[in-house]
Amino acid sequence: MSGTLVTLDLVGIFVFAISGALVAVRMDLDVFGVLVLAGTTGLGGGFLRDVLIGATPPAALADWRYLVVPVVAGLVTFWFHGVLGRMERRVSVFDAFGLSVFCVAGALKALDYGLGPLPAALMGMVTGIGGGMVRDLLAGRVPVVFRGELYATPALAGAAVAVVGERTDLPVAVVAVAGAAVCLSWRLLAIWRGWQAPKPTGSAAV
Amino acid sequence: MSGTLVTLDLVGIFVFAISGALVAVRMDLDVFGVLVLAGTTGLGGGFLRDVLIGATPPAALADWRYLVVPVVAGLVTFWFHGVLGRMERRVSVFDAFGLSVFCVAGALKALDYGLGPLPAALMGMVTGIGGGMVRDLLAGRVPVVFRGELYATPALAGAAVAVVGERTDLPVAVVAVAGAAVCLSWRLLAIWRGWQAPKPTGSAAV
Amino acid sequence: MSGTLVTLDLVGIFVFAISGALVAVRMDLDVFGVLVLAGTTGLGGGFLRDVLIGATPPAALADWRYLVVPVVAGLVTFWFHGVLGRMERRVSVFDAFGLSVFCVAGALKALDYGLGPLPAALMGMVTGIGGGMVRDLLAGRVPVVFRGELYATPALAGAAVAVVGERTDLPVAVVAVAGAAVCLSWRLLAIWRGWQAPKPTGSAAV
Repeated sequence: MSGTLVTLDLVGIFVFAISGALVAVRMDLDVFGVLVLAGTTGLGGGFLRDVLIGATPPAALADWRYLVVPVVAGLVTFWFHGVLGRMERRVSVFDAFGLSVFCVAGALKALDYGLGPLPAALMGMVTGIGGGMVRDLLAGRVPVVFRGELYATPALAGAAVAVVGERTDLPVAVVAVAGAAVCLSWRLLAIWRGWQAPKPTGSAAV
Repeated sequence: MSGTLVTLDLVGIFVFAISGALVAVRMDLDVFGVLVLAGTTGLGGGFLRDVLIGATPPAALADWRYLVVPVVAGLVTFWFHGVLGRMERRVSVFDAFGLSVFCVAGALKALDYGLGPLPAALMGMVTGIGGGMVRDLLAGRVPVVFRGELYATPALAGAAVAVVGERTDLPVAVVAVAGAAVCLSWRLLAIWRGWQAPKPTGSAAV
Repeated sequence: MSGTLVTLDLVGIFVFAISGALVAVRMDLDVFGVLVLAGTTGLGGGFLRDVLIGATPPAALADWRYLVVPVVAGLVTFWFHGVLGRMERRVSVFDAFGLSVFCVAGALKALDYGLGPLPAALMGMVTGIGGGMVRDLLAGRVPVVFRGELYATPALAGAAVAVVGERTDLPVAVVAVAGAAVCLSWRLLAIWRGWQAPKPTGSAAV
């Protein structure tokens, strides 16, 4: 991956790791629990993708920066969780940024490993939402991605844009920015407008 | 895999995906939650097996039909969950059929990848029960497979028959049918008779 | 791996499997639930490590003894859970022994597969704590490793000693014993003294 993509990747990991660490602080976990939830949230999506497409060992195990970033994010949250908790709305904006970077980077990596367009878009989505799902599983709560927020659909859309764009003659950077922009603007609109995905009719009465 | 096995595989995925989608509808999840639980329940067992035996990327990521089937099953359940919910007993019969197909297909694939007979039978069982375990984990409930129903043992038995049969001169189709028949009839009898696996003595008092 | 390491590995699997089976007995699971929790607790850490470093199929699927040991441990617990439950404090000493063996064996295997020192130490920790995390996820409880006990830190320390020692001219056996001794003594002191890892300040009030 180019230097720009790696930088964006590390920023995404940092932001996701903070969201995991905040959950751990609220569960009253000790410092190690905070670090584990920071690490699994930041790295989980990429791990899932790499294991599924056969890119082992995952990038995060071959480059020490991928391990240092979630540790730093976890320690920062451990010490300054009060401040971070108060700016959580802004954190969810950063989280949307991480989601956008991850869905594009995941889709492009899956294409690199020879997957077809449909599975590659799916792997992009998995990269984006996987970390949060692992975080919620370990924290013993139903994954946020299920709770009516529009979260996975923007990731799938951004990944799809990246997959389609990769077939054109456009430079990779343009394709990546386009995919990330679609995911980011969709997700931010969903947050600000309080959009909800449709529910089954009469399901509460089942 | 031969065309027959692929067809059976897709039928198994479809039926498992419906069982996952029904759980999602009852949790009052939105349409995306329904699709994710449909997909993980239908594909989870095969993913687990393929990752463990090193057959990456999994078949489901190399053949678009494996991705379309759970999406269709999820959407059908999303729209017609009322009807499907009422015929759930019949769904559990289809589920037994899926279990039978998966345990045999999983065991034969593991043998193909060079595993010995005992691990191959275990991988067959994992293929059969894995999807439901992932579904229950994501849904935040203790896996059904633990709750006293005879579920995993028939899968292990069917896989064992397939492994033993593969060492004979019998055609693969015969071996597959024999293994699936053992699993299916055992499982259906367990449903109809309400069989329970034995529990530890005095465990409730521990 | 040398015969000594395999023996230690099997002892660790046996002890971890008993801890999983005891949890299953207390949940009033049937005999199959007991065996599944015994197997996942005993083998889960190694599975996670092998899948992440690309060492598939995992050792446990290539050597039948790795499958027989957790089955025996599960059946022993199923029949004699009363006796084992009463000696649980001693079981947690055996568990500390398993943790020590696993963190060292995991780190050395990761180095063998070309990982750098930092990821290798992390994989050692994952090998040690992974089985218990999978057990607690399947049992529907927050992983013990989060609940304030000093558990993962000793595993990381033992793995780090093994990684550093492997770079010296010392024989592998000496390095392994040194790493395991660090983990074991740290963990036992944590149990006996009731050590707790630090918690975020004021987190209960968040």
